[in-house]
Amino acid sequence: MKITRNLYSSNLTLLTDLYQLTMAYGYWKAGMTDREAVFNLFFRRNPFKGGYAIACGLSYVIDFLENFNISDEDVAYLSTLKGNDDKQLFEPKFLDYLQQLEFTCDVDAVEEGSVVFPQEPLIRIKGSLIQCQILETLLLNMVNFQSLIATKSSRICLAARGEEVLEFGLRRAQGIDGGLAASRAAYIGGCAATSNVLAGKLFDIPVKGTHAHSWVMSFESEIEAFETYAEALPNNCIFLVDTYDTIEGVKHAIKAGNRLKEKGYKFAGIRLDSGDLAYLSTKARELLDAAGFTETVIVASNDLDEHIIDSLKQQDAKINVWGVGTKMVTAYDQPALGGVYKLSALRNKENTAWDYKVKLSEQAIKISTPGIQQIRRFYANGECIGDAIYDEENLPKNDNWTIIDPMDMTRRKKMTIVEGEYKDLLKPIFVNGKRVYKKPDLQTIQAKVKDELKTLHRSIKRFTNPHSYPVGLEKGLYDLKTDLILKLREVE
Amino acid sequence: MKITRNLYSSNLTLLTDLYQLTMAYGYWKAGMTDREAVFNLFFRRNPFKGGYAIACGLSYVIDFLENFNISDEDVAYLSTLKGNDDKQLFEPKFLDYLQQLEFTCDVDAVEEGSVVFPQEPLIRIKGSLIQCQILETLLLNMVNFQSLIATKSSRICLAARGEEVLEFGLRRAQGIDGGLAASRAAYIGGCAATSNVLAGKLFDIPVKGTHAHSWVMSFESEIEAFETYAEALPNNCIFLVDTYDTIEGVKHAIKAGNRLKEKGYKFAGIRLDSGDLAYLSTKARELLDAAGFTETVIVASNDLDEHIIDSLKQQDAKINVWGVGTKMVTAYDQPALGGVYKLSALRNKENTAWDYKVKLSEQAIKISTPGIQQIRRFYANGECIGDAIYDEENLPKNDNWTIIDPMDMTRRKKMTIVEGEYKDLLKPIFVNGKRVYKKPDLQTIQAKVKDELKTLHRSIKRFTNPHSYPVGLEKGLYDLKTDLILKLREVE
Repeated sequence: MKITRNLYSSNLTLLTDLYQLTMAYGYWKAGMTDREAVFNLFFRRNPFKGGYAIACGLSYVIDFLENFNISDEDVAYLSTLKGNDDKQLFEPKFLDYLQQLEFTCDVDAVEEGSVVFPQEPLIRIKGSLIQCQILETLLLNMVNFQSLIATKSSRICLAARGEEVLEFGLRRAQGIDGGLAASRAAYIGGCAATSNVLAGKLFDIPVKGTHAHSWVMSFESEIEAFETYAEALPNNCIFLVDTYDTIEGVKHAIKAGNRLKEKGYKFAGIRLDSGDLAYLSTKARELLDAAGFTETVIVASNDLDEHIIDSLKQQDAKINVWGVGTKMVTAYDQPALGGVYKLSALRNKENTAWDYKVKLSEQAIKISTPGIQQIRRFYANGECIGDAIYDEENLPKNDNWTIIDPMDMTRRKKMTIVEGEYKDLLKPIFVNGKRVYKKPDLQTIQAKVKDELKTLHRSIKRFTNPHSYPVGLEKGLYDLKTDLILKLREVE
Repeated sequence: MKITRNLYSSNLTLLTDLYQLTMAYGYWKAGMTDREAVFNLFFRRNPFKGGYAIACGLSYVIDFLENFNISDEDVAYLSTLKGNDDKQLFEPKFLDYLQQLEFTCDVDAVEEGSVVFPQEPLIRIKGSLIQCQILETLLLNMVNFQSLIATKSSRICLAARGEEVLEFGLRRAQGIDGGLAASRAAYIGGCAATSNVLAGKLFDIPVKGTHAHSWVMSFESEIEAFETYAEALPNNCIFLVDTYDTIEGVKHAIKAGNRLKEKGYKFAGIRLDSGDLAYLSTKARELLDAAGFTETVIVASNDLDEHIIDSLKQQDAKINVWGVGTKMVTAYDQPALGGVYKLSALRNKENTAWDYKVKLSEQAIKISTPGIQQIRRFYANGECIGDAIYDEENLPKNDNWTIIDPMDMTRRKKMTIVEGEYKDLLKPIFVNGKRVYKKPDLQTIQAKVKDELKTLHRSIKRFTNPHSYPVGLEKGLYDLKTDLILKLREVE
């Protein structure tokens, strides 16, 4: 009875921008394919005007890299591409080369669920120039989106102050994987469950759901609808009460709840999906309590996000469980994380040393950082106090580091290396193309997010004008970058 | 050498909200699975504060429905789900039933590439209640997202006034399919090509791409980078000129262009990816023209959307080709279309007649429309002048129709049925679960969008406060809906 979806049963190696392949071809023609390079994936600004982000997507990246492969079918397709003289874009010999290419890079990455900040390399790839280049697009696609959603989810869960958040977004998600990967990332960010059954099956996420308005509309009356539902699924009763009139709906739910109680079942909850949630939840709570259903929860949904939840909390709305859909899975107020992937070092022609690389721009924030970068996070009393981006090939000579804000060189901070009070965030994932890292399960990653958020001062987690966490370039790397920029600006 | 991506090689039938399955179970327990129902998929507001939308996603829907299937593995998963008493949520007999379920519905839909408006059913499903219900989530997922992107793309292409628009969004897209489906929808909306190679291969979309900043950074100098590229790919030369200094970059590109010309190749273009595009494109055009490269195009990219393109056009920027990424594929300013799927009719218990259904709400826009709906579009001199949503079971008695705005019953319009001056938009796609519709190829759908947009008065296509195209309920249906609402409000 199994079927196969053609769309995704093929490998994803061609899920890349054509320019990666034309550059690959250029490197091959120029004999540069195997020059060793270092690329870093990072973002430039925290999403949602927030103070932090959550790294996510590495698990997808690992799967992709382990399956890196150009199939016969892919080659057949690539050989049909033409240049502007209507001749083949790629020589057949190059396509043979491409097909024989095996993934042999070193990959270091920040673990999923880690708190991260702008400018920090989330993934660092070191290996042959051609391989590093070809991987760019898919790495960005996976990490940009999943980090965005994990961050959004963590914010929404913070707003809910420990109460259950359910992710309901599939119907408005951006495509199939826009739904699946979002359910995974939302769970990592702190959601308790998803409505997405396939995400539940594939990723072992708890799934939740009861009934929609159409259920109620399929019966002569609302009370008949609730009672029929309770008859069929007595152990899963959260009645949606706003199909016709919310307050009447609550009364009908209480009637059905009484029947459930008589039969020894739990009247688990009601759901509000429209109207003024602050007002209606208070009214519903009163009715439920008066009927003795003090343990029956009120689930609310309807275009919720962290700001609306926060406002409802401040209004003392009587909501216990938060169903969040569209605003979570599309990261509605900022639907893309502007992550980029930049070359930071390349072996010189003689293969005797690294040439460090920067990309210039008239905007300081768009100038990239050179070097074989690593991130060191410093702690004091369990709270993180600052991150240094440093060059592994140029470690400071002593334990007193200075970090310098790359956007404002007058903002500096001293950091002291004390045993047990710091950690380096990039961990080896692949060495020479072989995986050396064991993927944690989703529950472990979700727990990591919770732990990591505890290490952040609450001012950094604030939604409005959060405190800017200190991330700087270690002084040696800062000086090196400055020298490179000045040299390039003079030369060019 | 072929590999399989486990993630998507299984079927997608479980890509649904759990509540569809709990409702399905409820219908099964209540003996209601085979009651004939009609559901409609529609949206409530045009996206992007615009005047229209483009229907897209039907092709994905057809593939999905043709592969509708619950596998053994799916059943094994579903049987692990528990209720709040820790007992199985679904009886094994129900799961057997579910697994034997075959898709047998009638599906009528607006063809991909059609111009559509709020409240109009894009897809109408008629069939057993249980089947109609289970399909909701995936239909919404596919149609919401793809219609959103096709609409965005059509707006961006309108802003570019016939000039080439290239879609470059994969790296910032919302997941794998957020990229693939977006590339397809963007092409339908009018883009000339995509950078997404897998979309090119799967959907037969032209692909384009040359090189990135990292290519330039991999050489000692920019001129060496351009010349090496030109040597390798002389038939695909669009030089990215802003790695270090844009104007110097243009000069270097011209040098490389001269070499290309000597060798008999075309210096196809340059690309600007940062800075003030109005200023830089004018300067670059002057330099190119002065060097005799009047045919060499200027491609621009960097966070473009319809508004920025429109502004650049008004500033007389010398840009010939528009590369659009993030803002297109995520529909950045409105990343979700709020499409919904509502029950509009259900056979009565005796199976003698339809019970028409509405969902109430305190907001008029959220009240659904009952009936076996069809859309009739009226034309005058090749321009469309109004759409009637009417009930197929209650066709008006004569050829003079009145349509009434469901949001404002005082806004009415007379329409006269004249041979050749109207058409019905919903076409049969499946009859009793068998496909009766041949999917057009992508080029045909793209051409349809162009043709359809020509039938719209330009005031409807305006970006700012567009004219509101008249869509109304045919008076018979309007009266029927009003009666139903009043009856429900009295009863409830």
